[in-house]
Amino acid sequence: MEQIAPITVKRPKSNGVLPGVYLIGGGPGAADLITVRGSRILAQADIVFYDALIDISMLDWCPGTRLVQVGKRCGSHSSSQHFINKQLVDAASKHLVVVRLKGGDPMIFGRAQEEIDALEKANVRYEIVPGITTALAASAELKQPPTTRELSRTLTLTTLPGRCAHEDHKTAIYYMARDQLSEVGTTLIAQGYSVDTPVCLMESVSLSTQRSYACTLGQLRFGDVHHHFLDRQPVVVMVGEVYRKKLQTITPFIESTTHFNVLQKAS
Amino acid sequence: MEQIAPITVKRPKSNGVLPGVYLIGGGPGAADLITVRGSRILAQADIVFYDALIDISMLDWCPGTRLVQVGKRCGSHSSSQHFINKQLVDAASKHLVVVRLKGGDPMIFGRAQEEIDALEKANVRYEIVPGITTALAASAELKQPPTTRELSRTLTLTTLPGRCAHEDHKTAIYYMARDQLSEVGTTLIAQGYSVDTPVCLMESVSLSTQRSYACTLGQLRFGDVHHHFLDRQPVVVMVGEVYRKKLQTITPFIESTTHFNVLQKAS
Repeated sequence: MEQIAPITVKRPKSNGVLPGVYLIGGGPGAADLITVRGSRILAQADIVFYDALIDISMLDWCPGTRLVQVGKRCGSHSSSQHFINKQLVDAASKHLVVVRLKGGDPMIFGRAQEEIDALEKANVRYEIVPGITTALAASAELKQPPTTRELSRTLTLTTLPGRCAHEDHKTAIYYMARDQLSEVGTTLIAQGYSVDTPVCLMESVSLSTQRSYACTLGQLRFGDVHHHFLDRQPVVVMVGEVYRKKLQTITPFIESTTHFNVLQKAS
Repeated sequence: MEQIAPITVKRPKSNGVLPGVYLIGGGPGAADLITVRGSRILAQADIVFYDALIDISMLDWCPGTRLVQVGKRCGSHSSSQHFINKQLVDAASKHLVVVRLKGGDPMIFGRAQEEIDALEKANVRYEIVPGITTALAASAELKQPPTTRELSRTLTLTTLPGRCAHEDHKTAIYYMARDQLSEVGTTLIAQGYSVDTPVCLMESVSLSTQRSYACTLGQLRFGDVHHHFLDRQPVVVMVGEVYRKKLQTITPFIESTTHFNVLQKAS
């Protein structure tokens, strides 16, 4: 895994950043929710491959750097993962510091495995810089821990509406489920969750466009809440007893502290 | 929840940081794995209440700030949560920017609920700044995503060795389980997990003292691996088929890239 400095590189070694490919988690969206380490490596990057899901303000960390947008928006299976892998390996032979900037955390539902395999196969030195995953950023915005000592000491993160078996009362957070909200409700109720289990949904977590919504599992099952969300923005779905207070106090609409909730306007 | 600026405060409003209490996730340990937002608020803090688990280098972000250590090390139930809550509320009446710096992410097994309840009851303005949770930092260090498209699209985070029912092959990461390793092995095997399910353990994630270890669930059940870890350092336990490659390639000892593994020395 030791990389030989490629002979085509003309720039000196970047300040304090070892040559190689960096898979960096950009966090949920807000530019200042990247880690200090991530922002520093970005500032030293020679080329940055960034997800379409990354908020554009994140790229202020690397002004003047060559930027390449890759991947697709949520809800569509990217056909180009193989091409992204190839781009990373190729870039590592031409540049010292190559960044692959991903939304959230690279290791959670981020297809990092494919990129890791490609980099290892090509004998390219790489590091992974973790990022704030959307579920935890949403919890911070909501001011509600997904686990509490009394109600749930287990949190499940998943992308599978139909395959999430829990004990009742345990908290589950679904990624990329915007188009499967009804299925999430139907499946969990079939598995024994109460129809009045609280659900919080949050779109564009941490951005100025953040919107939130609260309902019960029964409402999620029959509701048309997905029509309220924007086409290309990810929605995180939080299910569990820990959210009951949110349901009671801010039903049916909850809003970010930083901007007015469009859903509330429409109601 | 609007806070009236307390009359005892003599310092002007901190630069860009609104008055209030900030529950900030310091991340797994390394000082540069805090978020940019977290580091900026720390730099403006008037007083910082920090966990015993926080690496001391993290406090370089707030030189000259009044520091108060609170809480206890992992493995011992803190008897002083009520006192910490009171300290935060009291500090908010005397200082503009109060920081409660927690290890990892404040919302995951961080007892944030108690502090949130106390701050809301006292009508103190507060915000939560997420941090890198240890499970994901460990995944980055291990270079192994806990979820992959092929093997597991569900990740469970828990502190409960005895209550974690999964489908086989799904990934589970245990926090604060250093003293319950045998119980984790026994319970999961009783629930149908194969005895040769791979397990990775990591201590002091992201610090220079980081140590890692790999074994099977059967070995974890009967092993004395907990003796290998230091008394006061947290250990994260990762269980699932996704770790098989790590087991095959680096059994029984895996090491951080930054330092020699003491366990390997001893073997």
